[in-house]
Amino acid sequence: MLATQYEGNKTFTVFEKEIEAPAAGEVRIKVAYVGVCGTDVHIYHGMMDKRVNIPETIGHEMSGVIDALGDGVTGYEVGDKVVVRPLDDRLAQPSDKGFNHVCEKLKFIGIDSPGAMQEYWNVPAFTLHKLKAETDLKLAALIEPLSVATHDVRMSGLKAGETAVVLGGGPIGLLVAMVAKETGADVIVSEVNETRIAKAKELGLDAVNPIKVDLIDYVRNKTENRLADVVFEVAGVQPALDTMTEVAGIRGRIVMVAIHGEKKPVDLFKFFWKELKLIGARVYEKEDYEKSIALITANEIPFEKMITDVQPLSNIQQVFGNIDSNPDGMKVLMDCQQ
Amino acid sequence: MLATQYEGNKTFTVFEKEIEAPAAGEVRIKVAYVGVCGTDVHIYHGMMDKRVNIPETIGHEMSGVIDALGDGVTGYEVGDKVVVRPLDDRLAQPSDKGFNHVCEKLKFIGIDSPGAMQEYWNVPAFTLHKLKAETDLKLAALIEPLSVATHDVRMSGLKAGETAVVLGGGPIGLLVAMVAKETGADVIVSEVNETRIAKAKELGLDAVNPIKVDLIDYVRNKTENRLADVVFEVAGVQPALDTMTEVAGIRGRIVMVAIHGEKKPVDLFKFFWKELKLIGARVYEKEDYEKSIALITANEIPFEKMITDVQPLSNIQQVFGNIDSNPDGMKVLMDCQQ
Ligand SMILES: NC(=O)c1ccc[n+]([C@@H]2O[C@H](COP(=O)([O-])OP(=O)(O)OC[C@H]3O[C@@H](n4cnc5c(N)ncnc54)[C@H](O)[C@@H]3O)[C@@H](O)[C@H]2O)c1
Ligand SMILES: NC(=O)c1ccc[n+]([C@@H]2O[C@H](COP(=O)([O-])OP(=O)(O)OC[C@H]3O[C@@H](n4cnc5c(N)ncnc54)[C@H](O)[C@@H]3O)[C@@H](O)[C@H]2O)c1
Ligand SMILES: [Zn+2]
Ligand SMILES: [Zn+2]
Repeated sequence: MLATQYEGNKTFTVFEKEIEAPAAGEVRIKVAYVGVCGTDVHIYHGMMDKRVNIPETIGHEMSGVIDALGDGVTGYEVGDKVVVRPLDDRLAQPSDKGFNHVCEKLKFIGIDSPGAMQEYWNVPAFTLHKLKAETDLKLAALIEPLSVATHDVRMSGLKAGETAVVLGGGPIGLLVAMVAKETGADVIVSEVNETRIAKAKELGLDAVNPIKVDLIDYVRNKTENRLADVVFEVAGVQPALDTMTEVAGIRGRIVMVAIHGEKKPVDLFKFFWKELKLIGARVYEKEDYEKSIALITANEIPFEKMITDVQPLSNIQQVFGNIDSNPDGMKVLMDCQQ
Repeated sequence: MLATQYEGNKTFTVFEKEIEAPAAGEVRIKVAYVGVCGTDVHIYHGMMDKRVNIPETIGHEMSGVIDALGDGVTGYEVGDKVVVRPLDDRLAQPSDKGFNHVCEKLKFIGIDSPGAMQEYWNVPAFTLHKLKAETDLKLAALIEPLSVATHDVRMSGLKAGETAVVLGGGPIGLLVAMVAKETGADVIVSEVNETRIAKAKELGLDAVNPIKVDLIDYVRNKTENRLADVVFEVAGVQPALDTMTEVAGIRGRIVMVAIHGEKKPVDLFKFFWKELKLIGARVYEKEDYEKSIALITANEIPFEKMITDVQPLSNIQQVFGNIDSNPDGMKVLMDCQQ
């Protein structure tokens, strides 16, 4: 079977190895497609070398077909189309209060343990979600990042008729915007990259460049002064932090999706003054996956426009190099089928 | 009638003036007691000279008895004991979404218009809450700050059996702690002033000095590693901001009660990682006043211990001078009855 490994120092190797039998409680998946996530790019950049067990196969946004069942696995059959929810919560404790998707000792499969960027992948059966036979496996590779979006929107409590502002129109921001719109909300995307603004418009979204347009005025006009009911911070930069508390109206809810590596200045006065809420959101829960699977299966949202490139797995080194030199691309998939 | 005015420059005047008839829709209250709030001390320090219409009578934490009814006032009688909810929301707009207590054009009575530090006070009848005939008017002067606390606790969703950590044991922090405890939660107060720690203990609260004790370890031990379900930030200092995200457990709710005048560094990573919530809370709504009135009427919590001094209104200048030079005192009331 074909496999890849991150070796440190911006280097991937591609090699043949023996196919392995799934252990008890595991299944072997014949991987179809794997999306490249911002986190994978972080790993490639060496930013997570302390956490990743180098050399390591990475990748966690995937789709595939069950190829073999380990002992004791029930409810699945060889040939089932599946996706993996890459959260290993087997070390959850009572102090996690049942919020196992963010439990203290959570292991993220594809970062803390081997990932999907290989031809066959063995994973615990409890991570699986079954797809319909007719589900498109390319689109299905979007289910993991889409579940970040369905989780974020669910955590926000967004309702039809409300206005949501999405700060940052990267892959996660645009998926959040699409899910928010599907909820029946009015959605405005704020993004500084013109190619990504064009992509957002292609997806049917209202998108503005806050460097060219006064975003606060824009939202004020669209909402008869109400401003945003919900704000998603998906840019990860200080200007977005400054904007989020401005663009939120009274009792506005701000969902913190972006990962801020260090403490940053926040306008806490506005939290007090307008009784704002800040809602931290990390990965997804089972129901978020189910919602994403339903959306991908229904295929009524132009998800296919999110996929800007599909490359054979053997091109992994070039794929990461290209992503690095091209900030315009959206979601790149690697085809792992040989 | 006796009246006082803030004249700017840390100066109050005390003088006699003509008693006024209440306008239509207003009542005249014979003021009993007025508490001195941190905001009043801010005004005395000249920090709010741009907002206050100098010379101005200030004060908003009060109790009293109705002395005369203006035209059209129904539902009240002369002799009724009352407190005022000092929020003038007559300029509320649809964009405030019904959250009139924090509406964009809210006027705070006693800051933006004349307050209670006088013998008689005319106020719109819609600001009134009626008390029982047997209610103690000294304790009733605590209803306004207590309503900040009942609002904060309600906004937190605190439940019996949960653990709440209150950062800051000033007047507001201790009232929050008492209301939280009454809810059936385990409450830990963190305070750096030893006199205030002693006061907290006198009130039956668990209180620790985070300079002497590792607060995180302390809470961890008390909760079998769960850490705080709810944190109230009532200190208003950077160390409390640093602590709030540490001491909150998974999905912990942090209520921002303190007023932070400028942007301050916040650990947004922990919001993401533990899926924390930050809940801005400002003043109170009608139901918070009703809850406070019920608590004061029941008188099962040692509220009287919060009152550390009672002075005649004519001593207003010394009262503010003393508060300034003594950070240990808790709530000082002025007796406005002549
Ligand atoms: N919460 C989670 O579980 C989770 C999961 C995945 C990703 N993330 C985080 O979500 C964030 C977004 O992920 P992504 O992959 O879409 O990243 P990305 O970097 O591709 O997208 C960020 C976008 O923000 C735009 N931007 C920059 N400055 C801006 C500004 N001032 N105003 C508006 N937009 C601006 C950038 O042009 C870019 O398109 C990252 O911080 C990532 O770490 C969180
Ligand atoms: N949200 C609202 O509507 C509302 C209403 C009233 C007051 N407030 C605000 O609430 C806050 C508290 O009000 P207050 O009157 O009790 O003020 P206060 O200044 O008397 O109390 C703050 C307390 O925090 C303590 N403290 C300082 N550093 C600390 C630390 N590192 N750890 C723990 N405690 C520390 C101080 O010793 C003090 O006792 C203020 O910021 C005030 O402006 C808000
Ligand atoms: Zn990812
Ligand atoms: Zn006050």
